[in-house]
Amino acid sequence: MASPSTAQNGVAAAEAFPDGTQDYKPLRSNKYDSKKPHITELPITWGNWYKHVNWLNTYFIIIVPIMGCVGAYFTPLTYRTAIFTVLFYFGSGLGITAGYHRLWAHSSYKAKLPLKIFLAAMGAASVEGSARWWSHGHRAHHRYTDTEKDPYSVRKGLLYSHIGWMVMKQNPKRMGRTDISDLNDDPVVVWQHKNCEPSFPTLLLHLHLKCVLTMSLIFPTVVCGLGWGDWVGGFIYAGILRIFCKQFPNLSSFVRLSRLLTDIVVVQQATFCVNSLAHWLGDQPFDDRNSPRDHVFTALITLGEGYHNFHHEFPSDHRNAIEWYQYDPTKWFIWTMKQIGLAYDLKQFRQNEIEKGRVQQLQKKLDQKRAGLDWGTPLEQLPVISWDDFVAESKNGRALVSIAGVIHDVTDFIKDHPGGKALISSAIGKDATAIFNGGVYLHSNAAHNLLSTMRVGVLRGGCEVEIWKRAQSENKDVGMLFD
Amino acid sequence: MASPSTAQNGVAAAEAFPDGTQDYKPLRSNKYDSKKPHITELPITWGNWYKHVNWLNTYFIIIVPIMGCVGAYFTPLTYRTAIFTVLFYFGSGLGITAGYHRLWAHSSYKAKLPLKIFLAAMGAASVEGSARWWSHGHRAHHRYTDTEKDPYSVRKGLLYSHIGWMVMKQNPKRMGRTDISDLNDDPVVVWQHKNCEPSFPTLLLHLHLKCVLTMSLIFPTVVCGLGWGDWVGGFIYAGILRIFCKQFPNLSSFVRLSRLLTDIVVVQQATFCVNSLAHWLGDQPFDDRNSPRDHVFTALITLGEGYHNFHHEFPSDHRNAIEWYQYDPTKWFIWTMKQIGLAYDLKQFRQNEIEKGRVQQLQKKLDQKRAGLDWGTPLEQLPVISWDDFVAESKNGRALVSIAGVIHDVTDFIKDHPGGKALISSAIGKDATAIFNGGVYLHSNAAHNLLSTMRVGVLRGGCEVEIWKRAQSENKDVGMLFD
Ligand code: HEM
Ligand code: HEM
Ligand SMILES: [Fe+2]
Ligand SMILES: [Fe+2]
Ligand SMILES: [Fe+2]
Ligand SMILES: [Fe+2]
Repeated sequence: MASPSTAQNGVAAAEAFPDGTQDYKPLRSNKYDSKKPHITELPITWGNWYKHVNWLNTYFIIIVPIMGCVGAYFTPLTYRTAIFTVLFYFGSGLGITAGYHRLWAHSSYKAKLPLKIFLAAMGAASVEGSARWWSHGHRAHHRYTDTEKDPYSVRKGLLYSHIGWMVMKQNPKRMGRTDISDLNDDPVVVWQHKNCEPSFPTLLLHLHLKCVLTMSLIFPTVVCGLGWGDWVGGFIYAGILRIFCKQFPNLSSFVRLSRLLTDIVVVQQATFCVNSLAHWLGDQPFDDRNSPRDHVFTALITLGEGYHNFHHEFPSDHRNAIEWYQYDPTKWFIWTMKQIGLAYDLKQFRQNEIEKGRVQQLQKKLDQKRAGLDWGTPLEQLPVISWDDFVAESKNGRALVSIAGVIHDVTDFIKDHPGGKALISSAIGKDATAIFNGGVYLHSNAAHNLLSTMRVGVLRGGCEVEIWKRAQSENKDVGMLFD
Repeated sequence: MASPSTAQNGVAAAEAFPDGTQDYKPLRSNKYDSKKPHITELPITWGNWYKHVNWLNTYFIIIVPIMGCVGAYFTPLTYRTAIFTVLFYFGSGLGITAGYHRLWAHSSYKAKLPLKIFLAAMGAASVEGSARWWSHGHRAHHRYTDTEKDPYSVRKGLLYSHIGWMVMKQNPKRMGRTDISDLNDDPVVVWQHKNCEPSFPTLLLHLHLKCVLTMSLIFPTVVCGLGWGDWVGGFIYAGILRIFCKQFPNLSSFVRLSRLLTDIVVVQQATFCVNSLAHWLGDQPFDDRNSPRDHVFTALITLGEGYHNFHHEFPSDHRNAIEWYQYDPTKWFIWTMKQIGLAYDLKQFRQNEIEKGRVQQLQKKLDQKRAGLDWGTPLEQLPVISWDDFVAESKNGRALVSIAGVIHDVTDFIKDHPGGKALISSAIGKDATAIFNGGVYLHSNAAHNLLSTMRVGVLRGGCEVEIWKRAQSENKDVGMLFD
């Protein structure tokens, strides 16, 4: 309380820049002497490893869930608590996806006050910090994707992007600068930030009164306790674990054990997957310069945030999934809120822009594939052969056919020719341009491709007509010329 | 027997051409006076419609199956007859697909004598004519696909290509010329042809002694009759209907009725689908100039002949399906025959050729899609604007930004900018080429696409540098020039 930080004075800490932008300023960085190197700049040793760990985050992300798992093993799950847990799972998940992410980090739609309050409360219940802190990091993630300034860069490993970036202390100088001036103007965000961001020294004293704990643990406990007397179950299941439950009381110990294992799939872990799995697993239909990927599995466990290649290309679109058959309950929630008047100005990129990205990415993949195939010797690398040499060689047992000014060696192909041996043989030593292109048979595209792999030379002058031209220039009588 | 046709003298009728090819010559065309117009050249009227119908084919294709359906309604299906029917369905189907089609029409592999005899016998059992007659028509179908000379062109309607071309008389002059010299050299083909092609006048007397009826009706009747005493069932089910059976004796009358309806799915109808459905339903991954298409449904009912777009591109490939997960039992049968030494020289196009076709077709589709999208006003249609006018207009409330020598109007986009209002506004009236391309943020491909739709002009000279250049030419002092 002795710190002069603005947060203590009722204003969220921010740094203003001359270009009109404002960046987030961590409260606790005040405590470090900027002359001393930050702990993250020192290598991890047996003597200092515990200083590298962010114990507050570790407590919320690892220790509390483990306590929950252990508790679950001893606590029977009642029917009504199970239902409430599922509802609360969706509710607190939407706090992150529809609230922190799409509303505040990306301003992909506008929300009326009641919806904002609901989302801020539910977001707090997910124990992922305040909307202001979360959005600031997320904007840096989008702006500096895959670089050193990306707070959860997948280039540092899947585990790092999933949980390591929170469990280990971060160098405040490293994260990229972002603009959060719009968030500083939003009273709900500022209020939630002041009441959610725990200041470390006062943590143990004050934390229990703050909204994180209120929403995440006390609220579900009270609902289940007052509602149907299941105080412990509400605390363990709806509070700490908030899992998808298929278990019911009185199951065999085998099921109890497997329950213990499935229990680790909590809403927290699920939403963290957006930072890890969504940058690691799946397709890249829009752009493959960076790591974001689309995958239905990621979408299923993150309430629809799994179409992440799309999302990084079109971050301010209120949708993550653009096809009707894709799973994006967050989009459906926002749409429902719009119908009842609580959301408006839903942003959406034009379909034209989306299709352009798809076309370009497909083109890129196609070009890569094309480059790996054999299209025959390029014309400029072929020897030039005269008509007479071509005819002479054809008579010497080499089956040469001239088509469109290019000489092809079909010796090995005669027996395989789909149109039979007789027809292709009848063209040896001749110009078969017309025959091949409809005169006898209009060959398929595949036949043209195959033909190009048989190129052995270019005809001097281009066509059989060449002999007529030469005859004329030598003033010989070749008959019927220019009749 | 009075006809002097070569067939009657023990040699299959053929016409020889100077280029070494031989075409099939229908026996019955002898009976027509070439001076009189062929019946197909006359319009169909109430007085002559029955002359347009090919009654022999109609009998085998329509009347016999209807008789079978009616018979099935009154005949219980025994367990062993059902199994035999399924086996015989596959056997006679393979006679057409592995025999008539891939072996004889396309020479896509070579077969030893026992396999040839088996395929010729099974093919006859399908009542689709002789291998020689069938291959000749099929080669014409490949060579003249979708044209007037295609014997079963889908351009004349789905029903025509399915069954109409057989039920209605055909003008023998119309069908395209093909080379069947290789088939005339194959003794199994010639023998089967002589004993299967019924000559109409002697049909009623001799037909029952010929191999079509022997294989298709007498053989299964005898197997089921001698084997387990089910003479009538063998005749009706394995003989006439040869269906996929899921029915067993003593079912309710409802099931009996639906059985009657499903009964029309016979091996004949199924293989006919190659000519109709395969040119009508599905994708065209290799070429879309003609009608052939790939579809798993067609493949399922035709023992794997449904990958027909591939097949028309690569007709002499012994495979129709190239992916392991596609259904092509005919290919599996040929492969098995190879393992036991009855088939050899299996032809297969190089994967390289197949991929080239795919790449080109994808390219074609992509180009079509690209042409339908808005890529912004082409540069050559934009007005040329001077740097000073650009700056002046930017100050007049129009939000103009210059990037890479092109001027963009971002007025309507500022509020939607995913990077916030402040950053984009800071670029108004300036050259933001560097800022946009990494100076502040390395925009995505989508952002570049979007930008191009906002083009309103081209900067005279290309860049902001223009003012320096002009200043120089006007000999003003602009400082720091060439330092
Ligand atoms: C010179 C090199 C030739 C190559 C590489 C070649 C290649 C092919 C290929 C790949 C096919 C099957 C794909 C398709 O239907 O288009 C084919 C079919 C055919 N070719 Fe050729 N061909 C050649 C020359 C000829 C000539 C000179 C003739 C005629 C004089 C000819 C007549 C035919 C006919 C009639 C077919 C259709 C056969 C059928 O699909 O049943 N080809 N050829
Ligand atoms: C002039 C026209 C501009 C257009 C059409 C435009 C368009 C876009 C688009 C479509 C995105 C989202 C896709 C992506 O991540 O690339 C984006 C993001 C961004 N833009 Fe722009 N932009 C413009 C100008 C600017 C300027 C001048 C700046 C900086 C001075 C800027 C800074 C940013 C930043 C930092 C982001 C990342 C925000 C995030 O993903 O959270 N933009 N812009
Ligand atoms: Fe991401
Ligand atoms: Fe995002
Ligand atoms: Fe076909
Ligand atoms: Fe074929």
